[in-house]
Amino acid sequence: MSHEQYQSQLDALHECMIACNHCYDACLEEDDIAMMAKCIRLDRECADICAYLEQAISRGTPFISELAEVCAKICTECGNECKKHDHEHCQKCAEACMACAEACKKLVA
Amino acid sequence: MSHEQYQSQLDALHECMIACNHCYDACLEEDDIAMMAKCIRLDRECADICAYLEQAISRGTPFISELAEVCAKICTECGNECKKHDHEHCQKCAEACMACAEACKKLVA
Amino acid sequence: MSHEQYQSQLDALHECMIACNHCYDACLEEDDIAMMAKCIRLDRECADICAYLEQAISRGTPFISELAEVCAKICTECGNECKKHDHEHCQKCAEACMACAEACKKLVA
Amino acid sequence: MSHEQYQSQLDALHECMIACNHCYDACLEEDDIAMMAKCIRLDRECADICAYLEQAISRGTPFISELAEVCAKICTECGNECKKHDHEHCQKCAEACMACAEACKKLVA
Repeated sequence: MSHEQYQSQLDALHECMIACNHCYDACLEEDDIAMMAKCIRLDRECADICAYLEQAISRGTPFISELAEVCAKICTECGNECKKHDHEHCQKCAEACMACAEACKKLVA
Repeated sequence: MSHEQYQSQLDALHECMIACNHCYDACLEEDDIAMMAKCIRLDRECADICAYLEQAISRGTPFISELAEVCAKICTECGNECKKHDHEHCQKCAEACMACAEACKKLVA
Repeated sequence: MSHEQYQSQLDALHECMIACNHCYDACLEEDDIAMMAKCIRLDRECADICAYLEQAISRGTPFISELAEVCAKICTECGNECKKHDHEHCQKCAEACMACAEACKKLVA
Repeated sequence: MSHEQYQSQLDALHECMIACNHCYDACLEEDDIAMMAKCIRLDRECADICAYLEQAISRGTPFISELAEVCAKICTECGNECKKHDHEHCQKCAEACMACAEACKKLVA
């Protein structure tokens, strides 16, 4: 199965999608929600592109390199934003984003 | 983290999405592709709803029960179609679909 | 083309998706963002299911009725939340949601 | 409303998504389905990225340029494949893809 060679990237994308969606969900419940607006926004951007790329890789898309390049950029920007906030969900999300950005860079031709 | 109580369902959805997309990809390469048209179609339906529900659960959607009910139905229909074909990717997909349908049924209120 | 019989529903879904995403975007910029948390959340739920159903109808999904039933429910809940807020984007979104809910109900078998 | 400046691109993306999904649906019913495998595959790639970019623009994504660049490439490849086939749905899809590719190129910084 050709998608098996991408197992570590699929795992990184999946973990990043889950972490971003959890961070989004948790940010919407925080008292300092006004501080979290950019984080909420980037969490959604990042969750959606990771979910997209996961599906695209697993269906044998011919556009892995192009999509992975965009995904790496979005993960990096989301991770940089999350890193600024002390909430545990933000810190965990930042880690998942940075790991995913590295995984995606390996897919860029 | 509230999404952690759904870990087994998230895993089942993720495995089903991957299996359906792989089956779709492989069906498109089969010599008997004319026989596989319904399988290709249902693989996409099933991969997309599983990917959708995975994201929805992880972002704390208030609509888990309604979405899981639809997902269980689509998984069941996809699994029933895949079961009819001897290709290994179809048989594996049928198993993932049936496991996911069971996981989804537990989410229906 | 079979999807043409669904033109009015496709239009309603498309308009609702655009309105929900715009409302989400605008809510994240409001001064009273803490008041808008539920609206932000439901906007995303609603935009995503409308986008999903639009695609599903246009690809000839066999699951229109089931998906439209869920979509009608989510549109109604999003519309009810948006209606509570005076922002123009919320009021416009509420209208689009209610119109879309009605359009979806016509698709339920 | 900031997404209104993108109205022509949103329309092109929407029409391309609908045309690709219809072409996918119709290809799966063709007698010469074996000839259409690549078209089916690219139709899904193209419908999914157009649907994605439509949503991303309407939610105010900061990544329009990067996503539009990928979308333009996928639309072009899908349009080039569709152009090879005489089926009316393929010819119409090719037109929608090429128009969408041009629209996307205007979004690349």
